[in-house]
Amino acid sequence: MTIRSALRAEARRRDEADPLTKYAREYITDGAIHLNGNSLGPPRASLTGALDRVVSDQWAPRQVQGWFREGWLDLPRTIGDKLATLLGAAPGQVVVAGETTSTTLFNALIAACRLRPTRPVLLIEAESFPTDLYIAASVARLLDRELIVRSRDGFDAYLARHGARVAAALAAPVDFRTGARRDIGPTTARCQAAGALSVWDLSHAAGVLPVDLDAHQVDLAIGCGYKYLGGGPGAPAYLYVPARLQPLLDLPLTGWHGHARMFAMTAEFEPAPGIDRARTGTPPVLSLIALDHALDPLVEVGIEALHRRGRELGEFFLECLAERAPDLAGRLASPRDPDRRGGHLALRIPEAEPVEAALAAAGVHVDSRPPDLIRLAFAPLYVTHEQVWHAVDALDHAVKGAR
Amino acid sequence: MTIRSALRAEARRRDEADPLTKYAREYITDGAIHLNGNSLGPPRASLTGALDRVVSDQWAPRQVQGWFREGWLDLPRTIGDKLATLLGAAPGQVVVAGETTSTTLFNALIAACRLRPTRPVLLIEAESFPTDLYIAASVARLLDRELIVRSRDGFDAYLARHGARVAAALAAPVDFRTGARRDIGPTTARCQAAGALSVWDLSHAAGVLPVDLDAHQVDLAIGCGYKYLGGGPGAPAYLYVPARLQPLLDLPLTGWHGHARMFAMTAEFEPAPGIDRARTGTPPVLSLIALDHALDPLVEVGIEALHRRGRELGEFFLECLAERAPDLAGRLASPRDPDRRGGHLALRIPEAEPVEAALAAAGVHVDSRPPDLIRLAFAPLYVTHEQVWHAVDALDHAVKGAR
Repeated sequence: MTIRSALRAEARRRDEADPLTKYAREYITDGAIHLNGNSLGPPRASLTGALDRVVSDQWAPRQVQGWFREGWLDLPRTIGDKLATLLGAAPGQVVVAGETTSTTLFNALIAACRLRPTRPVLLIEAESFPTDLYIAASVARLLDRELIVRSRDGFDAYLARHGARVAAALAAPVDFRTGARRDIGPTTARCQAAGALSVWDLSHAAGVLPVDLDAHQVDLAIGCGYKYLGGGPGAPAYLYVPARLQPLLDLPLTGWHGHARMFAMTAEFEPAPGIDRARTGTPPVLSLIALDHALDPLVEVGIEALHRRGRELGEFFLECLAERAPDLAGRLASPRDPDRRGGHLALRIPEAEPVEAALAAAGVHVDSRPPDLIRLAFAPLYVTHEQVWHAVDALDHAVKGAR
Repeated sequence: MTIRSALRAEARRRDEADPLTKYAREYITDGAIHLNGNSLGPPRASLTGALDRVVSDQWAPRQVQGWFREGWLDLPRTIGDKLATLLGAAPGQVVVAGETTSTTLFNALIAACRLRPTRPVLLIEAESFPTDLYIAASVARLLDRELIVRSRDGFDAYLARHGARVAAALAAPVDFRTGARRDIGPTTARCQAAGALSVWDLSHAAGVLPVDLDAHQVDLAIGCGYKYLGGGPGAPAYLYVPARLQPLLDLPLTGWHGHARMFAMTAEFEPAPGIDRARTGTPPVLSLIALDHALDPLVEVGIEALHRRGRELGEFFLECLAERAPDLAGRLASPRDPDRRGGHLALRIPEAEPVEAALAAAGVHVDSRPPDLIRLAFAPLYVTHEQVWHAVDALDHAVKGAR
């Protein structure tokens, strides 16, 4: 038996032994391999039926009463509570208001800064996803704070040295380029010691990595509804506000859905008690339903099992790569230790874009980030070990073909 | 022939003579009469197919490439251009960024105030939909402006007297309670004369009333994607920015989709040229597709014909009411002159809520606003004259039954 076929047998053995393997059948994979869960991922096959039910069985017969009799009005909170189980949060602390991720972060950062009115600095990680940098700059300008951008190491050093000047500090538990993990606990503790608000962008972590928001006493967190959460292209974002901060939270997006008595239609805004004050305008129900539907299998499996499976898939990929394409294994831009990574791996390959295209043509979806990164994500529920085995073959071919 | 049957014959004659009557078959009416287009309205029967295509034929096979190869990335602008034809705007001036209406207004009002940095006042109509009042108050607070709330008449009087102090003035062309119309032209001209920015909330007008934004030289306008536009529960909002203001527009929601080179992922925000700078974060594609799909018949018919048909239906309702329930006709809270109304009528009925419920049970969807308003909307494409005739009967019965 060659190493190649031995690895394939091992892949099959692991898939058969893992009860999570059966979930792959729930997704429309069209025979392709989806190593892009860090970006979009495939839809569940039952999504079209779920959307059809909203349109034909709820909207059409109920009309505007759908808001009350079909639970649309509660979706921001009911979806939030599902998400909370994946984020290590007690119920009533996560809301999906229906805005984009950028806007949700904007709302959160202004509220965070308002909780520290006299502190001059908004601190952000230089490695942040670009939209976070843009939004943080906009918030700093609006509130007349100083935006301080520091690379990962410099970020914690800044907190240690100048923490008393920091109103809010924004970071991400997973580097969107390399997948490198930053532990939420120590940085949050450093913020707490300094009296600064810790704000986390969970977009590249949620659904694949435990983030334990309550346990770490995180102050605020946001994230997108797509990527590992699977809510589909541009799925609405979520906001986490722990119960202890909710009564103090003073958000700028004072839409009528965040009002204590929205249908009283009073002239003055009166924030709702609890997480409801973080709702904004009338939310896009169809996109909320798609997110809700995507979360069900994730919630059923639970974040610990999701993390375990994603990690095993990633490790198996690296094992196969080391055996069959050691030159590529040497191009790993991510930490080799799985404890130091999120759900994706990055390889430095100068021909990243043509390699991405060649892989797509071969039915393997990855993504490239200029100038030279190929990212491969190991979403727990629709990727199998055997697919990982195939993907290594395809990657090896694609890289050789691109040279 | 009784008056009742003569009116029914007249209703049938009018429906047969009007080429717009055929559109009613495109909607899932479930045998009900939908006089609630000012709120939600029914879905088109082909919507579920459109959603299925996005999920099964675009998202599943294309994955993240759907943003490029299926036009998702352009949806905010392509939908905006469709909408522009209904709003009297040249292409390239309307965008559907994917946010709620409240948030879109927030974005617009901050940009408007920034264009008049030294003027202390943000002026808003007291009759505005409540969320507009809440958002305007939030913006005034963030930018340290004074919020002045004036009733309709006082609004224009304030502009005439103190216009030089006003940075931006927010009003609506249709009163959401009574349907009373406010002409966009004179108020916009008064703003211009005073050097104030005119901002319009078109939510209760778009799709049923011509608003002629370009002709009136409106400065900024926003509106929701539901109501007469039919985009479904919580459909994303739109923003109109005329070409002349686009280069100056300085928006606070600096999401990466509004960046001049979003995929360059630079650290600094650089606003895109044109209307693209008003895009925000990654938009919710499913809800955008539903809005796009809803607009097609409206765009095909055109705003003049939509207005004509809606107006005829409203007038026919009042004719039937005068003949068959003159006591109810005397309870009209809307202007009797159709030139002074938007697409809906309001009746003052103390038993508004039970009447709404009784009508719903009889298959006639209207809506009530506390304490005593019943609103009935005459959406041009899914309401027929014969349905209006039926609705008058049902209303008469419901009111008598509620007493």
